[in-house]
Amino acid sequence: MLEVYHYPLCPFSRKLRIVLKEKFIGFELFYEPFWERRREFLRMNPAGTTPVILKDSKLIIAGNQALFEYVEEIYGDNNLLGNTPEERLVIRRIVEWFDVKFYNEVTNYILNEKIIKTVSKSGAPNSQAIQAAKKNILYHLDYISFLRGDNRYIAGDKPTLADFTAAAQLSVLDFVGDVPWHHNQNAKDWYALVKSRPSFKPLLLDKIPNFQPPANYANPDF
Amino acid sequence: MLEVYHYPLCPFSRKLRIVLKEKFIGFELFYEPFWERRREFLRMNPAGTTPVILKDSKLIIAGNQALFEYVEEIYGDNNLLGNTPEERLVIRRIVEWFDVKFYNEVTNYILNEKIIKTVSKSGAPNSQAIQAAKKNILYHLDYISFLRGDNRYIAGDKPTLADFTAAAQLSVLDFVGDVPWHHNQNAKDWYALVKSRPSFKPLLLDKIPNFQPPANYANPDF
Repeated sequence: MLEVYHYPLCPFSRKLRIVLKEKFIGFELFYEPFWERRREFLRMNPAGTTPVILKDSKLIIAGNQALFEYVEEIYGDNNLLGNTPEERLVIRRIVEWFDVKFYNEVTNYILNEKIIKTVSKSGAPNSQAIQAAKKNILYHLDYISFLRGDNRYIAGDKPTLADFTAAAQLSVLDFVGDVPWHHNQNAKDWYALVKSRPSFKPLLLDKIPNFQPPANYANPDF
Repeated sequence: MLEVYHYPLCPFSRKLRIVLKEKFIGFELFYEPFWERRREFLRMNPAGTTPVILKDSKLIIAGNQALFEYVEEIYGDNNLLGNTPEERLVIRRIVEWFDVKFYNEVTNYILNEKIIKTVSKSGAPNSQAIQAAKKNILYHLDYISFLRGDNRYIAGDKPTLADFTAAAQLSVLDFVGDVPWHHNQNAKDWYALVKSRPSFKPLLLDKIPNFQPPANYANPDF
């Protein structure tokens, strides 16, 4: 039995929910406002980040990279990392791009300034940070389009962890209306494909106090 | 044949040099001042980060996490990640702590403010950033001591990627005299163990223009 501690607008939590659904693994969700640094939560994960899995009430699975590698190792069905060391190299490299670079240059700003500050009532958003994110996202959309090329997905013709990592980040921004989809049609078409997967649907139905997503957020044909 | 593009004071480059030595893999080093964003280098790694391996003049191995997973997959001798999914979970989680959290809270500040700004002549160091790093490092030294407990190394009695990741970060700070070793004897004893390994020695002999490491930098009994 997997207990998943998550925050609905944490991109890494979203990625985990998609991945577990893609692998048909059952789990129970527990809401974790990670910025409150709850003592019992920090005991599970001293880094204080979501998501964390508690497996069979005893094994703690935490650490973003460590967690997804573990999930891939023990739940081998629907392999999302590729079949050879070289395929895994490419996929892990794209995963890292979106987990680290995209997150630091885009999602982190929007998440902190627009979302966490609202939910935790901890001050006014910093408009410079939001502007930086809005500028940075453009070249990342172009990068998605470049990676995809003529393929259906960004690491080939099958969806992999690379797609779910990138789409999970974008879905947080999309929730607050901050993805300029008109900037790159190829990136938009790719996102429509990922968004229409059954594994993605629960994210589109999340109800989050204080926020009302844009009209097209839950629409696969946006 | 492996060509390793590195910067001597990049903690991830240092980690790679240690890991390849631990696995007895030969390689050739190429100096890469990553902040100059050299066009040919960006073509190999659009993220612009060191290290990058060029294997047999054709396969590009880049992306910090992707690179070390690949090295572990294809050079299985002297496994540094553990023997079971649960051991790998623990080791990868510590690796991530130092690669991401320690790097963001400590090394990144010192590297940018004290080292890159000096080498690239791009302005005066920001003393607030340096002070933040010096404050943050204290709890990380305590965390190393906590992880180590009574073991020889931080993930048990054998050295693993966790030790080399943490020690590579610390060695950069040690080079500029910014590790308050007196703060935690257990952490210091652990570092002395790692530092005395043959794989570590080349790092201690690096000559870097503009910098003169402290007297005890290359001394395993510091």
